[in-house]
Amino acid sequence: MVIKVLRLGHRRVRDKRVSTHCGLVARAFGAGGIVYSGEKDDKLIGSVEKVVSNWGGVFEVSHVKNWRKFLKEFDGVKVHLTMYGLGLKKEMSNVKKQAVGKDILVVIGGEKVPGEVYHLVDFNLSVGSQPHSEIAALALFLDKFFDGKELDLEFEGRIKVVPCKEGKKVIEKR
Amino acid sequence: MVIKVLRLGHRRVRDKRVSTHCGLVARAFGAGGIVYSGEKDDKLIGSVEKVVSNWGGVFEVSHVKNWRKFLKEFDGVKVHLTMYGLGLKKEMSNVKKQAVGKDILVVIGGEKVPGEVYHLVDFNLSVGSQPHSEIAALALFLDKFFDGKELDLEFEGRIKVVPCKEGKKVIEKR
Repeated sequence: MVIKVLRLGHRRVRDKRVSTHCGLVARAFGAGGIVYSGEKDDKLIGSVEKVVSNWGGVFEVSHVKNWRKFLKEFDGVKVHLTMYGLGLKKEMSNVKKQAVGKDILVVIGGEKVPGEVYHLVDFNLSVGSQPHSEIAALALFLDKFFDGKELDLEFEGRIKVVPCKEGKKVIEKR
Repeated sequence: MVIKVLRLGHRRVRDKRVSTHCGLVARAFGAGGIVYSGEKDDKLIGSVEKVVSNWGGVFEVSHVKNWRKFLKEFDGVKVHLTMYGLGLKKEMSNVKKQAVGKDILVVIGGEKVPGEVYHLVDFNLSVGSQPHSEIAALALFLDKFFDGKELDLEFEGRIKVVPCKEGKKVIEKR
């Protein structure tokens, strides 16, 4: 089972940092890759890939031109995170049931998500029905899906943090 | 008990959207306010305040010039979220113990957090020791602190979402 993230409608200038955060959160919390639609942005892809190469793990980053085709043809359970959907807490057991032995695609939008997205997915899930952030929604979804175990993930990378009470402790292989 | 968030080192152009997301996540997941340091940004404050006035709840948004003084003088438990800190999961029970009957200040940084922050707080906590996002870290911290109950929060606002399986359903009072 692999979780992939589809981040819709990236805009190079406006979304630079938010889209980077989406990629890093996906990786850090146990997804296997992120696919960006919208404007092609080699800098964005490069910056997420750089984190993967320094910090380890297997994580694919790519751009897709035709998100509609990608979404339709994805073989697995499709979950769209939106403040308009059904509550994450109640629906999570259904997602998990449907996802047994399958891959999952988590779809997160930018500001304007095309209406048809709601109909192309298996679940529209809300992480609270208030306006907040696709980054937070993605983090909470992954956390609830993995029951908090994503926080214990070990990455074998060139750089590693040694958790400490104060200050920073980092081991860096050269 | 009130949780406040201190978002360090805001930069008007570069952090516009990330800082907005921090404010919205703080509000949606049960904090009582956010204080921004760094560049004063009336547009940022206005955009978070607009969400509060439309969507309800009590949530204060402000800017502080001297974050050091603010942090030192805050009367309560101070928690800095950083990938270099001790694991959130293990430390949360200690945070909760210390926080009984007290307010909490959650400090989140931008890219460069001054070294002294680590020494001015009671806890340096990591939400996974991998690079990701202060927005995700804040969301996960609040979720673990409130044991997921923040997702059931009800806000009395002019606009309200009616969760649904497909599409968008919104009740708007005029």
